[in-house]
Amino acid sequence: MIQINIIGSGNVAQHLIKAFEGSKTVEIKQVFSRKKETLLHLVDYEKIATDYNEIQPADLHIIAVSDNAIAEVSEQLPFNNQFVVHTSGTSSMELLNPKNRRGVFYPLQTFSKNKAIDYSIIPFCLEAENTADFKLLESIAKSISTAVHSVSSEQRKALHVAAVFVSNFTNHLYSLGQEVCEENQLPFAILRPLIQETADKINTLNPIDAQTGPAIRHDSNTTEAHMAFLQNENKKNIYKILTQSIQHNGKKL
Amino acid sequence: MIQINIIGSGNVAQHLIKAFEGSKTVEIKQVFSRKKETLLHLVDYEKIATDYNEIQPADLHIIAVSDNAIAEVSEQLPFNNQFVVHTSGTSSMELLNPKNRRGVFYPLQTFSKNKAIDYSIIPFCLEAENTADFKLLESIAKSISTAVHSVSSEQRKALHVAAVFVSNFTNHLYSLGQEVCEENQLPFAILRPLIQETADKINTLNPIDAQTGPAIRHDSNTTEAHMAFLQNENKKNIYKILTQSIQHNGKKL
Repeated sequence: MIQINIIGSGNVAQHLIKAFEGSKTVEIKQVFSRKKETLLHLVDYEKIATDYNEIQPADLHIIAVSDNAIAEVSEQLPFNNQFVVHTSGTSSMELLNPKNRRGVFYPLQTFSKNKAIDYSIIPFCLEAENTADFKLLESIAKSISTAVHSVSSEQRKALHVAAVFVSNFTNHLYSLGQEVCEENQLPFAILRPLIQETADKINTLNPIDAQTGPAIRHDSNTTEAHMAFLQNENKKNIYKILTQSIQHNGKKL
Repeated sequence: MIQINIIGSGNVAQHLIKAFEGSKTVEIKQVFSRKKETLLHLVDYEKIATDYNEIQPADLHIIAVSDNAIAEVSEQLPFNNQFVVHTSGTSSMELLNPKNRRGVFYPLQTFSKNKAIDYSIIPFCLEAENTADFKLLESIAKSISTAVHSVSSEQRKALHVAAVFVSNFTNHLYSLGQEVCEENQLPFAILRPLIQETADKINTLNPIDAQTGPAIRHDSNTTEAHMAFLQNENKKNIYKILTQSIQHNGKKL
């Protein structure tokens, strides 16, 4: 068995713990959390380290903490020349303390608490300083996912930016849509089939070919009526800027 | 059998023709298209009218044309006191010429050519001037969909605005994500599981509870790095405005 430690107790750490549950090739040796209670629903009491000095050597240490804590956590690890990775989309591999061999293990997914996920389709973006470590990382990722990619630090940064656009910003547009519904006594559920179909379409069409609506049709009667309808300055501004961006970028259907 | 005519030959008209194919209670009597060729792959030659005077009475006439053509098309119909509806999300019922009984039959979905759709889950938003006509419209909608709603003109306008946010604007964010990928030699396919999961999440979580990413975490190191990474002024501006909107609206996860 490949033995791994997971350092961290947030969303990503908890989802990784679940992803490796029941794996036939990878075993979680230890996890690190400041408070044992945070992880007791997932991990046996004796496997939870609360002090860095309790962390033992393993084949791989996955640091799953917020970006601004990565450098310090990697410095605190009580050993040298072990293989240590972080899970960040944005931070460079070099942020990890060089006393250990370094790499990146970035799952390109949006993790929410209380929402189960099919880990097998999550793309894992991998990077490592040397080939042997990369191979190990690859076999660990392939034990849970069918979508494993070698991605450089620069590409990973681009991917994270793209992910913010298609996931974080998209979810925020869902929030704004919900607000508009609720302000008009409409159930948000009425929008769900449309949201699903919009996401499904891009499995068979390029987004630019799937673009519909008043903006791409340059239907200024409708876009102006919508702007007038929106009382909220923030929504009005977002409507205007995204409409202009569609008209600037898109081709007409 | 309830007999209906469909006036129009664009995306919505063609999808409605497909939706009623094989219906056991509703029959398409005639369709109207300026050019027979546009609809010959869907409808028999003799059922296609190319002149308004060829349109015969029916239980319902569905005008599925662009918003700015609705008034004129409804005026051209060669009969009075028939039941006539349009399919627009934005236009009021009163845009239809009052020589006929009026209503609205708005399918809340994004229709692209060359993309099959499960019509049974599409929400249909209905409105009619009188109760008997509403009942007929309801039975017609229920013959193809399980999600049939009574929606006033004002609510329908709100719904269309919300739909633009969650569908048209969302699809545009997918386009921008694709551009960022392609500029960095990454396949767009790598983003697809994330896009699917983002849409799936809101079936079980409210969007505001599903919000993740650097904006909602107020992780200014990352948002500033992303802004610096984006060279394109339009993308930079959209990034900034949506980040601010998330931080203004959202609660932290």
